[in-house]
Amino acid sequence: MFTLLKTEGRARRGRYITPHGTIETPVFMNVGTQAAIKGGLDAFDLKAIGCQVELSNTYHLHLLPGDEVIRTLGGLHQFMQWDGPILTDSGGFQVFSLASLRQIKEEGVTFASHLDGRRIFMGPEESMRIQSNLGSDIAMAFDECVENPAPYDYVKASCQRTYRWLVRCQKALAECNQRDEAPNKGQVLWGINQGGTFPDLRKNHMEQIAELDLPGYAVGGLAVGEPAEVMYEILEEVVPVMPQNKPRYLMGVGTPSNIIEAVWRGIDFFDCVLPARNARHGHLYTKNGRINLNNAKYQTDDTPVDEACGCSVCQRYSRAYLRHLLKAEEVLGLRLCVLHNLWFYNHLMADIRQALDQGRFAAFREEWSARLDLRI
Amino acid sequence: MFTLLKTEGRARRGRYITPHGTIETPVFMNVGTQAAIKGGLDAFDLKAIGCQVELSNTYHLHLLPGDEVIRTLGGLHQFMQWDGPILTDSGGFQVFSLASLRQIKEEGVTFASHLDGRRIFMGPEESMRIQSNLGSDIAMAFDECVENPAPYDYVKASCQRTYRWLVRCQKALAECNQRDEAPNKGQVLWGINQGGTFPDLRKNHMEQIAELDLPGYAVGGLAVGEPAEVMYEILEEVVPVMPQNKPRYLMGVGTPSNIIEAVWRGIDFFDCVLPARNARHGHLYTKNGRINLNNAKYQTDDTPVDEACGCSVCQRYSRAYLRHLLKAEEVLGLRLCVLHNLWFYNHLMADIRQALDQGRFAAFREEWSARLDLRI
Repeated sequence: MFTLLKTEGRARRGRYITPHGTIETPVFMNVGTQAAIKGGLDAFDLKAIGCQVELSNTYHLHLLPGDEVIRTLGGLHQFMQWDGPILTDSGGFQVFSLASLRQIKEEGVTFASHLDGRRIFMGPEESMRIQSNLGSDIAMAFDECVENPAPYDYVKASCQRTYRWLVRCQKALAECNQRDEAPNKGQVLWGINQGGTFPDLRKNHMEQIAELDLPGYAVGGLAVGEPAEVMYEILEEVVPVMPQNKPRYLMGVGTPSNIIEAVWRGIDFFDCVLPARNARHGHLYTKNGRINLNNAKYQTDDTPVDEACGCSVCQRYSRAYLRHLLKAEEVLGLRLCVLHNLWFYNHLMADIRQALDQGRFAAFREEWSARLDLRI
Repeated sequence: MFTLLKTEGRARRGRYITPHGTIETPVFMNVGTQAAIKGGLDAFDLKAIGCQVELSNTYHLHLLPGDEVIRTLGGLHQFMQWDGPILTDSGGFQVFSLASLRQIKEEGVTFASHLDGRRIFMGPEESMRIQSNLGSDIAMAFDECVENPAPYDYVKASCQRTYRWLVRCQKALAECNQRDEAPNKGQVLWGINQGGTFPDLRKNHMEQIAELDLPGYAVGGLAVGEPAEVMYEILEEVVPVMPQNKPRYLMGVGTPSNIIEAVWRGIDFFDCVLPARNARHGHLYTKNGRINLNNAKYQTDDTPVDEACGCSVCQRYSRAYLRHLLKAEEVLGLRLCVLHNLWFYNHLMADIRQALDQGRFAAFREEWSARLDLRI
């Protein structure tokens, strides 16, 4: 399913085939947690801004509208009218970041819904069943996402449990795919590497899960507060023990600079809420750095956000108009700013792929690292 | 500028030419108070849903971003990238409904901004100057909008002042149009009839302002709480004394049923926040009545809002998806629901025009009055 087309150092140019189409990597997945992109973008908008893969969330969709509802309606693709590849996060991260009153046992986790406090149990089997009902193309393993820093012994024991959970996920998804009512019988499972910031735990865990020969692997539990340099060091330790012939996904990352540095270290897949969140706060990306539309100097600025940008927002609207919409708290401001920032991210990835195709990614990386504003 | 193409009883099929294009009437103007449609629609969305005229607001745009800012940026058309006709409300209604600490004098009104409490003075000259800076195609007269019910003597005196203000508006706009920096030198002034719910005051005031031979006239101060039947009675009194060869605008109206009844009584132009507001609350129009997406029965309803509707939302999405988006508080839900409801209104007007063209508006009206849900 994954083809390695070209490498430059550790950086890779690849291609991944899913039941809903082919993904050119490195790729940024656009985050539609609740089956919609924050700021009012729909599936047709995603197509227009160059999105290749949409990412939705097991935890959120289990709560609302409920994964059985989505299955009844033909699965997530049909529900949100996105006909391209979808990856679903397992819910693990949200159980550990959003939900409260958690009790972790070998079977799984009991927690209180952040919406109404309802007690919910989720383990590997439940997460796979939910993701099967959603019918995504890529299901992520249900894991424990440990906060950094955490004690060595706790992380070590957690890694072992996450491994046992992964084995159960593999078995459970295979069974789910046998169900007549599964909307996407070609759904596959990707494993998630954990181990906090301990290189030996990271490597041991990675070697262990690699033996399961899953069609893809993620690095989880990073970008949760540790300095970027720590993340890069972990990647330098763990990526070399990840299978060469499988896609590699760095979960929840990151800034343009983070992404370029991680591609440099051998990562293929990314996702992050940052570009949409920044957009909603008026922080817009340009090839010359980020601009903050809240600055008074943009009030009468009739130029587009980025003269060099080909997105529909930059073709049509001035910084002054976008700034006004945000100040006036018009939803349209969110929409236009998110459209621009996600276009920027998707096209940054296209530029990265082109640089890799042309064997000049090292030079590309140098150019970008000179743009300090983007390192934020 | 206005051509009366056909009549059926008092109902009229007309055409109005502005510096930014021709308007086929009867018409519903889509409300973009702050130079954006609530729910995240932009000018290109408006085009796609059949909007002919956009309506923005003098009061709101004077406060944010400021009319001088918009003038500097080339006017409202350029600012929001809407190349069709724009009508600006005068700010009168908002001064009397939104602002506080009002002091009304012969010169104009002093009030406190609803945003920051800043004291602002607005009279006929200020309103015309602001609307000239915005560069709309149709500027509305600055008037006092009296609450219903109000004492007869107060309304009578207010009508006289509103008449004197109208004379000043006419002079002021003519001067504004002479300014080199005016973005739209073809801007015209429409007068507004007042008189509360007193037929004699309404008629006297209408006769008085008709003598000024303005290119259009509105009926203001209705749909502010009085029963619909009272509004229809006022229209039956006042419309016959409105000039035949000028467009007639019923401000702030209304439901589909209100609009059909007002067209029946001789009105050509409408505007209302209702369809967008209803949309945001999940109340969607169909040709068989309004549906409330909050009802649990829509949770797994895979049909579109209206099978007979040609809008992009009904072509693509299920009731279940829209309901989910609203429940999940996703901005996309607002956007899709507003797109549908405004499409419905714009196409209702197209159906009204077609019925008038074909001389069957009386029958059309009968069909609709049988759909009681739409009378809400």
